[in-house]
Parts: sequence; C-alpha cells; structure tokens
Amino acid sequence: MRYLVTISYDGSNFYGFQRLKNKRNVQEELEKVLTIINKKKVEIKGAGRTDRGVHAYGQRAHFDLDIIIPKENLKKAINNLLPDDVYIKDIMEVDDSFHARFNVKTKRYAYKINIGEYDPLINNYYYQINKDIKLEVLKKCSDIFLGVHNFKNFVSGERKNYDAIIYDIDIKKDGDYIIIEFYGKSFYRYMIRNIVGAMLDVCFNRANLSDIKTMLDKFNVKKCLSCAPACGLYLLEIEY
Amino acid sequence: MRYLVTISYDGSNFYGFQRLKNKRNVQEELEKVLTIINKKKVEIKGAGRTDRGVHAYGQRAHFDLDIIIPKENLKKAINNLLPDDVYIKDIMEVDDSFHARFNVKTKRYAYKINIGEYDPLINNYYYQINKDIKLEVLKKCSDIFLGVHNFKNFVSGERKNYDAIIYDIDIKKDGDYIIIEFYGKSFYRYMIRNIVGAMLDVCFNRANLSDIKTMLDKFNVKKCLSCAPACGLYLLEIEY
Repeated sequence: MRYLVTISYDGSNFYGFQRLKNKRNVQEELEKVLTIINKKKVEIKGAGRTDRGVHAYGQRAHFDLDIIIPKENLKKAINNLLPDDVYIKDIMEVDDSFHARFNVKTKRYAYKINIGEYDPLINNYYYQINKDIKLEVLKKCSDIFLGVHNFKNFVSGERKNYDAIIYDIDIKKDGDYIIIEFYGKSFYRYMIRNIVGAMLDVCFNRANLSDIKTMLDKFNVKKCLSCAPACGLYLLEIEY
Repeated sequence: MRYLVTISYDGSNFYGFQRLKNKRNVQEELEKVLTIINKKKVEIKGAGRTDRGVHAYGQRAHFDLDIIIPKENLKKAINNLLPDDVYIKDIMEVDDSFHARFNVKTKRYAYKINIGEYDPLINNYYYQINKDIKLEVLKKCSDIFLGVHNFKNFVSGERKNYDAIIYDIDIKKDGDYIIIEFYGKSFYRYMIRNIVGAMLDVCFNRANLSDIKTMLDKFNVKKCLSCAPACGLYLLEIEY
C-alpha cells in the first residue's frame, strides 16, 4: 500500500530534508521509524529538498508499506517514534502510480523577517534585520519576479532548465514581522532566498529595480546580490 | 558605575539563569562578556533565578564596571559578544545602593499553552496539550490563587516563608494558544508551573476546585497535583 504524508519539521537541527551521510536529516529520521513499523526497510520519496535550517509545515513524501494498518493508527505510531522536531500532520492512501515529486502541481513557501529589535527567542525562525523596510518597495520588487522567467542568476548549482513560473507573491506585515509568501510551480535551490535577498538589496539601496530586471533577462550577468538566510524560510504547502 | 540591564533569552539551551558548575547558564555568559569589556572580573546580581528551559523577555540584573563607557555603546559591545540566545534589551545607570534582587517591586510572568495539534516548531516554547480547555474553568481556578496565600504546597524546596501575593492572573486565548499572565510580588521555585499544573488538573477532571483550596489553606496536605513543563514559562517583566 502506498501512502502520502504531510510533514512539519523544525529545520534548526537538521542538515535539510534529504538523506545525507553522517548528517542529521529529516528523510532518515522518517525512514528509520517506518522501517521499525514495517519490519522491513522502507525508503521514502520526498516532494523536494529543503536546505539546512529551512522549516516546513507542509512537506510531502510517499512510501510503500508491506503491512496493512488503519491510517489513523499509522499516524499515531509514526509520531510516537519520531523525534520532537518532526511531526506527521496527515496521512493518505494513494494509488501505486502516485509519486510525491513528479505529481507536484504547485508549492507555497513563506519567508519571515523581523524588522524590530533583535529577539533571541526567534533567532532560528526569522531573518532579523532591525531596519525599517518600505512595503511599497518590496511590492515593486516582487512584481518583477511574477510570471515565467529564467531564474539562472537566482539559482545555486547547475541544472538543465532554469525556467520557472511564480503565480503570486503576497507581502503581509504584522507588527514588526514581514511575511512574504511565494506561490508557484517549481522553486530551485536557493531561489527564494536569492529573490528575498535581491528584494532586500533594493530596499536598502544596495541595488535597484533595473539590476533585478537585468539579472532575470540576461543569463550571463555576473552581478551578485544577497542571499537571505535559511532560518526565515518555510515550506508551507504542496498541492497535487 | 553601577548598571541595571534588562535581558531576554531563549531558555532552551540553558540550565537556568543562575551560575551552575559545568552547566551552561545565562549568568556566566553575561559575566564572561562583561569581564572582557571591563578587563577585570565582573559579577552580576540577578533579580531572581529562572529554571532550566524557562525563557525571559524581561529578566534584570545589576553589576559594577570600573571603566566609563556611554550606555548605548556598552549595550552594543555586550550584545556583539553575547551568544545568539541572550540579548541585552536595555541598560540603565543606577545608584550604588540599587540592588536588582532586593529592590524588586513586582514581577510578571506568562505561561503559554498550545491546545491545538502538535507543532514541532514551537516545542521549546509552548506546553503542547492537544486537548480543549474551557476558559471558564481556568478562570475559576485562577481566582482561587489571587491575593495573599501560603503557597507551601505549590513551591519546591525548603524556605522560611511561603507567603506570597498574586495581584492578577489574566487569561487570553489567541486561536489555539492560551496565555496565562501572572502579576505579583514574589514567585518561588516552581510556583507558577505548579499553579498552572493544578489549574489544568481541574480542567481535565483530575482534581476539583476544593482540592486547590485545601492545598492553599492547609500546609500539610500530601495530595500531589501536576507541574507544567518549563518550556511554556516566560519571565516578562520586573518592576522596581
């Protein structure tokens, strides 16, 4: 039987989601637990990676079990065995042809910023800037990224295809907290952190809007904009 | 020159505020930094202890420095040297007779509870119960603790005097979060955690209101109520 799970985790003490030799990661924690329950090795397929320090409220993964067990019991059994910083929110039976990565339709991420004074209690959960940010400037920047673009200059590492579509970027302010939500089809390595970094560079006059436009249209620009830290990034939702 | 500082810290990775041999504590982190700045050993006097895992937004301490340095610069210098989970929010010059512990007038604490589904991202910051709590019951319990009482059955360890006054207990609900604020003169070891534990015992029918009344009035009762975990407790404010 194939299962699809929704996973939340505190990324602070993980070297990301994906299996990584001798480094604590979410995938192996989950595989360890599922292997105990299944009494036979289980491998999971995640919907995508998240980097070291990135959090998730809606990561997804699928796996196959040999044993048959009602899904509510399975959820309890998994959560009882998982460490405190990972939790299975939801479990669903899916067709054998379902694939957690290949079937992804859209993804939603949030990036959280504290513009107020430093707060030691949220240091793993917000990018703490302690400088005022003009929402209008942030909004103008975000508009540039909407739609289909070649994101080569905003992606880390080599890949065949850098095209991606961003459907929406929503910016909210709640007291000293700014939350930027990204809604799109595919987000590549460091893409959101580089976009947020570029937006903040414009806010703080380290770059201007035309720099961003140039970097989105011309692929061999060598200008380097900032990368926002991992702790502010949350994988919120994956839709199929 | 004597200084009074307001300190915030994430208690997750500390064995409490107070100096403790071979265990990481807030006092020693601060003394290390002040000794570097002062170029001569500095000892601080805290307004009170907080236990392992308890957080603070408004802990206070005083200390004497030999060097003279404008307080804004001093604040920056201290915060630059402190680890990420401790932060000096405010610094004030005070009279040589001022004492951070003896001069305390009132203290304000908060206790935070998540009654919704388990969230791995707040596990160090909320008591996660995942059961509904009736605010009316919580309120009825809290009323019993108001005013002057002998809190012997709600305090851990031996002391000469168990009398304390609680001026106000305020209960707020924000979505799945319940915040209970305590305002009083002195709170002894485990007192708030034992009060919250007792209130929750009543909410979940493990005890009734008369059990609490008995424990507050009669000192040799041996009935044992629950103690709420440290992670939900925050020292919010100390007034002089």
